[in-house]
Amino acid sequence: MADLRSDTVTRPTKGMREAMAKAAVGDDVFGDDPTVNAFEAYVAELFGHEAALFTPSGTMANQIALQLVVPAGGELLAGADAHVVTYELGSAALYGGISTRTWGSEGAALDVERIAAMIRPAGYPSVPTAAIAVEQTHNLGGGGVVPLATLQHLRAVADAQGVALHCDGARIWHAHVADGVTLAEYGALFDTLSVCLSKGLGAPVGSLVIGSRERITRARLIRKRMGGGMRQVGILAAAGRYALDHHIQRLTEDHERARIIAEALAPFGVVDPEQVRTNLVPLDLSKHDLDAPSLTAQAAERGVLISAMLPRVARLVTHLDLDDESMDQTIEVLSELLAAP
Amino acid sequence: MADLRSDTVTRPTKGMREAMAKAAVGDDVFGDDPTVNAFEAYVAELFGHEAALFTPSGTMANQIALQLVVPAGGELLAGADAHVVTYELGSAALYGGISTRTWGSEGAALDVERIAAMIRPAGYPSVPTAAIAVEQTHNLGGGGVVPLATLQHLRAVADAQGVALHCDGARIWHAHVADGVTLAEYGALFDTLSVCLSKGLGAPVGSLVIGSRERITRARLIRKRMGGGMRQVGILAAAGRYALDHHIQRLTEDHERARIIAEALAPFGVVDPEQVRTNLVPLDLSKHDLDAPSLTAQAAERGVLISAMLPRVARLVTHLDLDDESMDQTIEVLSELLAAP
Amino acid sequence: MADLRSDTVTRPTKGMREAMAKAAVGDDVFGDDPTVNAFEAYVAELFGHEAALFTPSGTMANQIALQLVVPAGGELLAGADAHVVTYELGSAALYGGISTRTWGSEGAALDVERIAAMIRPAGYPSVPTAAIAVEQTHNLGGGGVVPLATLQHLRAVADAQGVALHCDGARIWHAHVADGVTLAEYGALFDTLSVCLSKGLGAPVGSLVIGSRERITRARLIRKRMGGGMRQVGILAAAGRYALDHHIQRLTEDHERARIIAEALAPFGVVDPEQVRTNLVPLDLSKHDLDAPSLTAQAAERGVLISAMLPRVARLVTHLDLDDESMDQTIEVLSELLAAP
Amino acid sequence: MADLRSDTVTRPTKGMREAMAKAAVGDDVFGDDPTVNAFEAYVAELFGHEAALFTPSGTMANQIALQLVVPAGGELLAGADAHVVTYELGSAALYGGISTRTWGSEGAALDVERIAAMIRPAGYPSVPTAAIAVEQTHNLGGGGVVPLATLQHLRAVADAQGVALHCDGARIWHAHVADGVTLAEYGALFDTLSVCLSKGLGAPVGSLVIGSRERITRARLIRKRMGGGMRQVGILAAAGRYALDHHIQRLTEDHERARIIAEALAPFGVVDPEQVRTNLVPLDLSKHDLDAPSLTAQAAERGVLISAMLPRVARLVTHLDLDDESMDQTIEVLSELLAAP
Repeated sequence: MADLRSDTVTRPTKGMREAMAKAAVGDDVFGDDPTVNAFEAYVAELFGHEAALFTPSGTMANQIALQLVVPAGGELLAGADAHVVTYELGSAALYGGISTRTWGSEGAALDVERIAAMIRPAGYPSVPTAAIAVEQTHNLGGGGVVPLATLQHLRAVADAQGVALHCDGARIWHAHVADGVTLAEYGALFDTLSVCLSKGLGAPVGSLVIGSRERITRARLIRKRMGGGMRQVGILAAAGRYALDHHIQRLTEDHERARIIAEALAPFGVVDPEQVRTNLVPLDLSKHDLDAPSLTAQAAERGVLISAMLPRVARLVTHLDLDDESMDQTIEVLSELLAAP
Repeated sequence: MADLRSDTVTRPTKGMREAMAKAAVGDDVFGDDPTVNAFEAYVAELFGHEAALFTPSGTMANQIALQLVVPAGGELLAGADAHVVTYELGSAALYGGISTRTWGSEGAALDVERIAAMIRPAGYPSVPTAAIAVEQTHNLGGGGVVPLATLQHLRAVADAQGVALHCDGARIWHAHVADGVTLAEYGALFDTLSVCLSKGLGAPVGSLVIGSRERITRARLIRKRMGGGMRQVGILAAAGRYALDHHIQRLTEDHERARIIAEALAPFGVVDPEQVRTNLVPLDLSKHDLDAPSLTAQAAERGVLISAMLPRVARLVTHLDLDDESMDQTIEVLSELLAAP
Repeated sequence: MADLRSDTVTRPTKGMREAMAKAAVGDDVFGDDPTVNAFEAYVAELFGHEAALFTPSGTMANQIALQLVVPAGGELLAGADAHVVTYELGSAALYGGISTRTWGSEGAALDVERIAAMIRPAGYPSVPTAAIAVEQTHNLGGGGVVPLATLQHLRAVADAQGVALHCDGARIWHAHVADGVTLAEYGALFDTLSVCLSKGLGAPVGSLVIGSRERITRARLIRKRMGGGMRQVGILAAAGRYALDHHIQRLTEDHERARIIAEALAPFGVVDPEQVRTNLVPLDLSKHDLDAPSLTAQAAERGVLISAMLPRVARLVTHLDLDDESMDQTIEVLSELLAAP
Repeated sequence: MADLRSDTVTRPTKGMREAMAKAAVGDDVFGDDPTVNAFEAYVAELFGHEAALFTPSGTMANQIALQLVVPAGGELLAGADAHVVTYELGSAALYGGISTRTWGSEGAALDVERIAAMIRPAGYPSVPTAAIAVEQTHNLGGGGVVPLATLQHLRAVADAQGVALHCDGARIWHAHVADGVTLAEYGALFDTLSVCLSKGLGAPVGSLVIGSRERITRARLIRKRMGGGMRQVGILAAAGRYALDHHIQRLTEDHERARIIAEALAPFGVVDPEQVRTNLVPLDLSKHDLDAPSLTAQAAERGVLISAMLPRVARLVTHLDLDDESMDQTIEVLSELLAAP
């Protein structure tokens, strides 16, 4: 089986399992787990923030952050294809009481002036905008990387208008490697960030929400209310630390492989290799006979697992568990399926 | 004082007060108010639906309808400037648990294909789209009228995708008069509608939510939970009935006056008279020295009341309480203010 | 028909209708309705508070108050039979995010020490108690009146523990008349109160929430979000003012009539006349063959309307629209039904 | 340090760590983790239910279950001291829109007739009761065990009234060992159960929600929305399976030790050893000079960690990481502190 459904399918490596097996642990609900405490401090420092909090999932990290920066009844601006809007099952509205207004589906190609024009200040009868969320890299945007200059522009707009900026940085590691921007440079631009350990980095479980000490203190309460307070979480934090120490630089290999796949499939008109900057290969089937569920089903029958993200969008993801044979199989099977009349 | 802040400032006429004074009433929470019962049936029939429910405000009528057509955790598509998104204080998210994805600020000029492309079907890991809301006429869209053919196209899209259509018809009466489309024609296109009696129609209080009998039965419970269950509401329904009987056709006068104002202010580059189709005159101050709060404040000092809707958008509204003198004063004062260097 | 289902069935009197017909009005969403402005100030003053806000229903007045005194995620203590817990369709939890812990079904006979023991202070891992709600008079408690000394004791407890006190005073007028405690004396004991105009006082529509200026400013926003912002509401406020001026003292007649009914039905073991202090006559059918829906249905067939509140609790309510003939009919019909084997 | 704050402080044993280190894993969001799949099936079978779902915490397991059995706007009956009411930060109301009415603080000594009398059926204007939650063993009830006959009685009541029964079984293992009731016997009595692996059983992380296949299918969506969807969760499930295989029967040791502590402290009038049936030792300080925070602080200074649960309630918990020396130290230190004038 070649499994390119997501980089979340990666399994802990031997070294990572060893790190987990010997991790010192304590009860994190009491603040007593030394491994997670050190890990949270380490991640906060990586991004130049005061504090960080470990969570069981990226959805929880994002939703905690949104609840931190948008009061119930307030408004968040985000892309129409943002993970926080599309793939978190309405959590922001249902649990956070957060309204969203969305810009379009341009993925990582943010139009900052247009976003600026969407901001609604307080003092009018309209719902005031409390925060803006961006996604780095952008999942439904094909793993695109928002350029640093764009983010700096957006930060300036946010400062001028007094709104907060959140970064859904589930795959910010990929942006860091692709664009050579440091994590601290990214960190400096956002009020809150979420980062994920269990995607390309290969840890089994875990994300973090990052921000000021005051915000992370509140985050701890929200995490408990959402059911994310875990006990001897050092086991998982040790895997996360191992992932940060060993699996960031190797993401370039995943990016190269994604590019190889994109170039192989480009002749079928479903992907532009120039747009494939990280480890995601989106297939645009809007002009193809096969829709995403059909392509996904047929590929699976032949041993290649990919994801149907939307009716006409399929996605392949490269990651550390992928071997050369799977790469060959993937290209062969998809080429045949896409070439069929 | 010339009061053009909104058509909501209209006061009941003598005839309307008489209708209220003699209305037969009962306890509507028990279903015993004959006037409101008859009125709800009458309005439902006007729009060709099975049932209707009286509410204390347009916000409540809209929010009940949204809770009827979107389950908690589900998604609504709407314009970024829609009243339900912008001017109802986040009620859909906070009380209804409803996520919104929004298209742009094109007001009544809906791009149906773009909306169709935004719909997310069930069966994917994304939040499924449950309903689409349109606004007729469109408030922040300058009182623009969505063409009947556009709505029919949208209905076809909604049917094909299995999503519901809600019409925020607070000023649907104005569209009816402006485009000559019957209320029943509009009604046939929507699963739920809200209509308002206390704007251009001049009733003191009240809106209705309109839909199927099953939906309106549920609406009654939601209304109670939201605090909209009133008792001898026939007093207000009598005013609403009077308004429907006497104040619909005369809306053409308001439309003509809005056009007269727009033409008078057009030379200042703040409004295109061709776009003024009903009783709203939006002033686009994005290229003017005065922002909306400043213009509003200066006009008020000189006896002309208008509304600052957003930092660079002011709005004038014509209505049945406006006399000729107020019209002259409005044009004179605003012309002078907008002409100032 | 003898209608004793509720005092909400009362219809506006001739004098009240005249007051409504000539009321000066304006757009209350803009704060321009002189009648409601004066009325809100008058009611605030009656209770010795800074401000008050008119709402379309008692449920909305209560729910706004609860949202004012309990933050989302916080806790309210109330009686298990309190109207805010039982008859407002879960609004506090669903819309306010408010948790409730409840004491028992003792109605107006509050056990202050027991309530004090239920309070959970901040600083522990438990949900902190933000407020306590009491009901005066107590609806499911058979219209019982909480003694002034009890309320003073509760106020002292609340002060000592730093929690707020809300009074659901839908029928506080009846307590005032029954116990001779002034409205200002009651007002002094609570952080927020709701009072209702459309029950025993006979106005067609309306309640008020009463509190500090800061709280009522926030209440205005919550009211808009809940859909309670109305326009020319002076029509309704005029009825409310008329009710306060003419219909408070006469409540003693309703109380006497309730006592007469209770004494007539006491022989059937369903009510203790000594417990009937105001205008509600609860019938405890827990030991009777007839349950509440059956008794209600059989009485209705014979022209006497009463309410089934719970499976074994029926309720009669006396009010200003009840004539002598209806009184006689009520006693006769119910006596026969309760006497049947 | 003697750490008796909670049994959640237990650290994975050597054998448990080995089980974790060699667990086969996959992406559980895709349903591909063989260890968690087998574990969920195993736990479901233990309790005689169709399905189970792994969650990161007991709070999440409980809250998912409550959202399964109570619709938003519906009502849950529970004890005033229930964990779901007191220690889950208002999650049921804020996220689930669930109203609670509570009976008293009698812990495990349920008065079934009183609970039955609290049920509000559908068809009345009151909020209908959808479910009842009980806690086994009862945390704030001092680890008390609800007798099987009581639960059977409650089940009969629930069936008769058509309401669901949820068991917060975080420490149901202790009840099983203390009373000799099988897990299947308990399982047969409830519509949903939550059970916890990271308390007395010693696993680092994890709880499960148990129920019908239809409910657990819905639970999977709710878990994702709450942020509890984890990836290679087999690591944690392996620890859970090890805990079930090795750590249930040994709970009797914890129970004996708790009894020993209770007997040692009984002379100070703070605990009745007869009431200590499992591994919790509640100290009732209501008549003592020291309040719970003071006692906790002074004990900590002397190397004994206990919990202040409420202002006048402290708690000691025995567990598998406690050695004989810690037992002696605990008794010595607390005896001295409680004996001081």
